[in-house]
Amino acid sequence: METGRHRSQSLGSAGLAFHALLCSSLLLNAVFFAHHLLRSSPTATPERLGDGLSWALQAAREAEAVAAADCSGHGNVFLDGVTSEDGRPGCECNRCFSGPDCSVRTPNCTADADSGNPLFLEPYWRRHAAASAVVFSGWHRLSYITTGGRFHSVELDRHIRLLHRAVGNAVVDDKYLVFGAGSMQLINALVYALSPDGNADSPPASVVATVPYYPAYKSQTDMFDGREYRWDGTTATWSNNGSRNSTKGFIEFVTSPNNPDTALRKPVLAGSSAIVDHAYYWPHLTHIPAPADEDVMLFTASKLSGHAGSRFGWALIRDEKVAKRALSYVEQSIMGASRDTQLRMLKILKVILANLHGKEDIFAFGYDVMRSRWRRLNAVVSRSTRISLQKIPPQYCTYFNRIKEPSPAYAWVKCEWDEDVDCYETLLAAGIISRSGTLSEAEARYTRMSLLKAQDDFDVLLERITEFVDAEEHGRAPGGSSSM
Amino acid sequence: METGRHRSQSLGSAGLAFHALLCSSLLLNAVFFAHHLLRSSPTATPERLGDGLSWALQAAREAEAVAAADCSGHGNVFLDGVTSEDGRPGCECNRCFSGPDCSVRTPNCTADADSGNPLFLEPYWRRHAAASAVVFSGWHRLSYITTGGRFHSVELDRHIRLLHRAVGNAVVDDKYLVFGAGSMQLINALVYALSPDGNADSPPASVVATVPYYPAYKSQTDMFDGREYRWDGTTATWSNNGSRNSTKGFIEFVTSPNNPDTALRKPVLAGSSAIVDHAYYWPHLTHIPAPADEDVMLFTASKLSGHAGSRFGWALIRDEKVAKRALSYVEQSIMGASRDTQLRMLKILKVILANLHGKEDIFAFGYDVMRSRWRRLNAVVSRSTRISLQKIPPQYCTYFNRIKEPSPAYAWVKCEWDEDVDCYETLLAAGIISRSGTLSEAEARYTRMSLLKAQDDFDVLLERITEFVDAEEHGRAPGGSSSM
Repeated sequence: METGRHRSQSLGSAGLAFHALLCSSLLLNAVFFAHHLLRSSPTATPERLGDGLSWALQAAREAEAVAAADCSGHGNVFLDGVTSEDGRPGCECNRCFSGPDCSVRTPNCTADADSGNPLFLEPYWRRHAAASAVVFSGWHRLSYITTGGRFHSVELDRHIRLLHRAVGNAVVDDKYLVFGAGSMQLINALVYALSPDGNADSPPASVVATVPYYPAYKSQTDMFDGREYRWDGTTATWSNNGSRNSTKGFIEFVTSPNNPDTALRKPVLAGSSAIVDHAYYWPHLTHIPAPADEDVMLFTASKLSGHAGSRFGWALIRDEKVAKRALSYVEQSIMGASRDTQLRMLKILKVILANLHGKEDIFAFGYDVMRSRWRRLNAVVSRSTRISLQKIPPQYCTYFNRIKEPSPAYAWVKCEWDEDVDCYETLLAAGIISRSGTLSEAEARYTRMSLLKAQDDFDVLLERITEFVDAEEHGRAPGGSSSM
Repeated sequence: METGRHRSQSLGSAGLAFHALLCSSLLLNAVFFAHHLLRSSPTATPERLGDGLSWALQAAREAEAVAAADCSGHGNVFLDGVTSEDGRPGCECNRCFSGPDCSVRTPNCTADADSGNPLFLEPYWRRHAAASAVVFSGWHRLSYITTGGRFHSVELDRHIRLLHRAVGNAVVDDKYLVFGAGSMQLINALVYALSPDGNADSPPASVVATVPYYPAYKSQTDMFDGREYRWDGTTATWSNNGSRNSTKGFIEFVTSPNNPDTALRKPVLAGSSAIVDHAYYWPHLTHIPAPADEDVMLFTASKLSGHAGSRFGWALIRDEKVAKRALSYVEQSIMGASRDTQLRMLKILKVILANLHGKEDIFAFGYDVMRSRWRRLNAVVSRSTRISLQKIPPQYCTYFNRIKEPSPAYAWVKCEWDEDVDCYETLLAAGIISRSGTLSEAEARYTRMSLLKAQDDFDVLLERITEFVDAEEHGRAPGGSSSM
């Protein structure tokens, strides 16, 4: 009992202090523990979850769960992917990979270098996941009308102009801006805007381009087949001989850098209305000698940021009347580009602008990828006598303020051997899908290989090309032709 | 010193236990505190923030901050709203409200009942905020290609079919589905698809509609002005007399329920290719007598869910060749509807489907709003001899499985007095902007008032209409005409 008394006595002033400290500490434990439970509990009210997040939490979790799925680095899971038996979307594998987690490589897989699908930029957006994410509320922009009473986002308009000024690839101050569902839609919108008014008694405008040209200029013009214009062949027909009627109105499509051959281009027909498509006029895909300043220019998100699926492009137009007609076309045909896409593009442009000239510059990132691909491809093809690539010299770029090696979007391949009259077929026999030059009215001896796709696509392409060139050196021709 | 010794001695076995407990407790506190700090600290790694959220957290917070802004119930803040001096988007006020928080009511404000802007559904999406939100990662669907190798989301296709089956407003099993940038784009896509092939030697198809018709059928057909078709007036010209050439191919636009007069319609010209626009054929805007089963049908998200700004519509097409031509049109003109919008629409449809026939059914919600508006408008107009509305009887609806009161999208107003020859002008003088019947080739004595807009818009409209009718009863005519 002594001991007991001693003990209780020993809890005198200092002992009470200890006791109080212990109680406080235990109480604080309880508070922290309860707080922890409250934050983790699935039955807590939504307002208390996720660092104060409420309605956006569920969607954020869904997106992160999908993004965290393992596709072995050879595929993606998307929120709107096809659901498998467990009700969740599965991996969508890159070409030449398969299996539930895309880990199975297809042996001797044919390389697909056809489409200009700009997936080379996908890793950039994964690196900037937090800054580039956007949350859409269910009630975001239900209305036809956005700020300012029209179909254009005022902030997106402003940011597009900021970007052109910062990059120095186009003069925007004296231009009207017209949005479209991809620059694709603006092809016909601009043909419409530059053609004689339907009420006028003028003959139809002649829509032309210089070989090799982007096939959609012809195919879309033929499809819409408006009475105020018609596809009228290539500029060679009109510039080389006396057949050009001076009263004829020409609408000339110019792509610069050109698709498919990546050369910078100018209009050929004097006095024509030129539509200059600058889809590839960004510092990751070409040097920028000076800001473009043509009367009518086209740009697209697809080749700028890689967002081909968003379907967003824009035209810069000097003349007010032409701009109003193009705008009227977009309004009457689709009532303006998707407001959903306009919000997403705004966020994407903000990320691009915030990183310009820094260590996370999208153009520096894209340039590094594309320059490396071009170098590696050239290293292989330089050993070949059978195929050759377009020559591109290093050039001074105003954006990077230095001489740059080439980093083109496409390889414009020529088959040099007499027997390889159809270069597309020659490459196809070697396991490479390309886009035949004949689609651009070039000789069949030319074909286009896209370098813009995912790294897996490029790697497989390089494998097939390497085998093709190796076979040539060893006297074998996987293309089916004799090398002798 | 004894005391000291006693104390130290008194911390014997039990004392040590106390000491250990205190230390553990303090340590636990430190752990909890550090944990708490780590979760709250802006310098903590993203993976530890927001209940396990990482990259999506920032965007979720931005969206919730914007949504929480106070616009007095008379406006919205949007993520892409014009930024004010503090760099944040401000309130965009409903018409007739102004001020930084939209709390200032404009006295004697003109009511705008022109556009069919479907904002009556905005409150529904605010009620379903968590379920309808979508997070877009920066790398979501960069590619041109979605699952399955085309531009269509397979899951969205599946959910559209599920919805039509569940609602019972269209037979989908034997139809192809073609997406467009709003049903607006599909107007010309279907004219193209139903016109003679450009290579055929057939005369152009005659595009027609019955008065009163939706003006875009004519204006869009005139604008595109393809050589394979032409606008050829109204069906009355061709059905009433012998002028119809049996070799002539007709493409007849039919809107059912009709815009502007909300009557259910059938094609008028036997043997024509009919494009039946069912934009309003949903149970909140009409009774559904039976599933529609025409060869070519049009639907739009705008009037289904209220997402007009998203620009998404679809066609259901029985014939494979027609469907392929319509699909080719969308591919060649815009390379498919925005994948961003396709993801958002998928989420929206999932919410709609999950709530069908429940207490949060969107059609029940929309029906209640629109029936109430129609009732209130009729109560006022029934006191007038000067204007009248279309008569709509209660009808049995297969979706709700009961007789329903009318809930039309538009009021089709007739000015009954001899002197009010232009009903649009009569209403305008009374402070109401409507859409003149002449735009639909109806008599000027008719004009359309939209009932689809925000509650504020409807409330102001009802105020102006009430004043107009009151003035009539008191022998005054705010419309400028004498009531005598």
